[in-house]
Amino acid sequence: MAELGQIGRRPTGGMQRLAWTEEEFAAKTFLTGRLEALGLAPELDEAANVWADLGQGEGPALVIGSHLDTVPEGGRYDGALGVMAALEVVRLLVESGRPLRRRVRLCAFTDEEGARFGTGLFGSTALAGDADMDHLAAVTDRQGVSLSEAMAARGKHLERLPDAPRRLVDAAAYLELHIEQGPRLERMGRDVGLVTTITGIHQVRYRFLGEANHAGTTAIGDRRDALLPAAQTALAVRRAVEGADGRAVATVGYLDALPGAANVVPGEARMAVEVRSPDSALMDEIHREIAAEAREAAGGRVEVRIDEGHLAHPADMDRLWRERLRAQATAIGEEAVDLVSWAGHDAGALARVLPAAMVFVPSHDGVSHAPTEFTAPERYRAGLTVFARTVCQWAWGLGA
Amino acid sequence: MAELGQIGRRPTGGMQRLAWTEEEFAAKTFLTGRLEALGLAPELDEAANVWADLGQGEGPALVIGSHLDTVPEGGRYDGALGVMAALEVVRLLVESGRPLRRRVRLCAFTDEEGARFGTGLFGSTALAGDADMDHLAAVTDRQGVSLSEAMAARGKHLERLPDAPRRLVDAAAYLELHIEQGPRLERMGRDVGLVTTITGIHQVRYRFLGEANHAGTTAIGDRRDALLPAAQTALAVRRAVEGADGRAVATVGYLDALPGAANVVPGEARMAVEVRSPDSALMDEIHREIAAEAREAAGGRVEVRIDEGHLAHPADMDRLWRERLRAQATAIGEEAVDLVSWAGHDAGALARVLPAAMVFVPSHDGVSHAPTEFTAPERYRAGLTVFARTVCQWAWGLGA
Repeated sequence: MAELGQIGRRPTGGMQRLAWTEEEFAAKTFLTGRLEALGLAPELDEAANVWADLGQGEGPALVIGSHLDTVPEGGRYDGALGVMAALEVVRLLVESGRPLRRRVRLCAFTDEEGARFGTGLFGSTALAGDADMDHLAAVTDRQGVSLSEAMAARGKHLERLPDAPRRLVDAAAYLELHIEQGPRLERMGRDVGLVTTITGIHQVRYRFLGEANHAGTTAIGDRRDALLPAAQTALAVRRAVEGADGRAVATVGYLDALPGAANVVPGEARMAVEVRSPDSALMDEIHREIAAEAREAAGGRVEVRIDEGHLAHPADMDRLWRERLRAQATAIGEEAVDLVSWAGHDAGALARVLPAAMVFVPSHDGVSHAPTEFTAPERYRAGLTVFARTVCQWAWGLGA
Repeated sequence: MAELGQIGRRPTGGMQRLAWTEEEFAAKTFLTGRLEALGLAPELDEAANVWADLGQGEGPALVIGSHLDTVPEGGRYDGALGVMAALEVVRLLVESGRPLRRRVRLCAFTDEEGARFGTGLFGSTALAGDADMDHLAAVTDRQGVSLSEAMAARGKHLERLPDAPRRLVDAAAYLELHIEQGPRLERMGRDVGLVTTITGIHQVRYRFLGEANHAGTTAIGDRRDALLPAAQTALAVRRAVEGADGRAVATVGYLDALPGAANVVPGEARMAVEVRSPDSALMDEIHREIAAEAREAAGGRVEVRIDEGHLAHPADMDRLWRERLRAQATAIGEEAVDLVSWAGHDAGALARVLPAAMVFVPSHDGVSHAPTEFTAPERYRAGLTVFARTVCQWAWGLGA
């Protein structure tokens, strides 16, 4: 964790390993180096997911892993802890010398966060066969670099992505350890969470189109200021979700005004509205309410364009694997707590095609996606033990 | 005007002659060429303002002019029309052969717009002895080129700027013709405006400091979202100025959220609030009201930092010179309309040390700082005639 935490480290102490950048690939190289040192032969698939296989034969494999990319100025634990937990279990299985009765495969997924191209859960979605090829072919980052160009620069070709799902043909299930990224476990004084449902996430992009003009000579009544209805919509987003009684959250993460000078009336404003809920119908209802408020705020003077962005449906975790994890918690004297995951995870994308389950460990003060994200080893030890025991039970053919 | 409109012309038809660039200096070379053709000996002062002197002796001189630089993708008339008007009057005085009783000096000021370095009214402020040398020594453009480097590339040295005011020792007054950059004259069906006061401009920068966090796992009640109080403040800016009954305008030109991703609760938001008014006290009052609303919107959860930005005090135009201009309008059968200038002008900087006055001519549809900026010759003919007659009365020693 300490060594990985140096890759893409920023002056603030935050981590920055955006998808397809040198930093994300340096983290992958670090991982493949560790896997090779254990005698394994890691490889990158069509989505640049890192794979390493343990065990012989044709039987179904348990897939374990997480992701190595981060948000801008993110933390050291989100994704990284799950990949290192999987690596640690692989090391344990290799070094134990004990023969494997069932196969285990490690996978580190590409671009879980989607911070660069808005293409979150990229690697896991491709494996599940749910990649939206038209959308992926069209997206660019803020510098205008297309996803296709960014992939080619790393030796991967977008058009080959539809071949990725063959990697899951022999997969029995998927298990992932992850930080909670919220304060619930810490507040309850518990160390092991079991995810019941991964929240749905629906991002919608707004463009407000007015008219740029001189900020002195354009009278207030003559203005078609695009920033003001955007600001009003941002406040409406908060109001809409305050009525949802904890069953949904919503966020405006940016609000960009163009041309963006102090002495020019903004002619255009762009923002994204993200709504999350384990309840699809509620998510739709909140978006409808916000869109209505945006149109009202714009009135006749500013045009509103609304475009669909990232959509992930709510995903239920597998009941049998949850109970296997719970049994291992009980075995070490821990009471596992059932939790909704308000963060999206690769396990959610994979749950559409495989049984999937997740172990949560506490996040100090609930902070995540920030340089101060932290989980002490004594806080993740129990979750890691539950995760490791469950994988070993499978690999060694013990228990159920 | 047609020839000058080719210098720095962009594919869109917009003009781009940013301060200290090749384009701005090509326009200056065009001007000095025309002045030399009239037998004058133009020269550039310490600020690279272009000067040409007409008439002999020690008596005080009337300074006439405007600026040749533009905003990015600006228009063909802003500044340029006033310089060409001054050139036309100089040509008239030279070609008339009539002996001058008083001196006239043409001046084309450097960097009125401030679009490149944020150093608007550069040349006129230097002449007035108000240059902030510490600030000028520190500024760079978006490419990281310092003002000092940009000046040196044109053979001018920032450290010599404090010598510029000696050029005004013999100046009696300053007169400028300029497009209105707003729709008032056109709407009234009038062709001649006389500026009463050049608006004050006061920019204040706001930083809202909350805490960046995960947009899913941070419950609404736990958030310290910096964007929401910024959005609320942007709406307060509009409300504050709507109560000012046309005596002030205010603008939020940008609102940047950091880190600025759709799935991260913004930990910081930055915005600029610009207030303009011919009334200093009102400008201060509006800023105080906005600051109070910003602090209330932030509550205890988000910190607000408020920093002073660009400040130009309102500048009253000289009453005697306004009446001289009005008399010439009356003489040609035009009714001159008194107007506040809501844009800043070099005349405002010079008014701190000299009597100054301005003639406005109509702007078609009120558009300015845009490629579609336009004033037809039949719409600027009256203003040009008033301006020319007033300068000639001075030079030939006629009237008052």
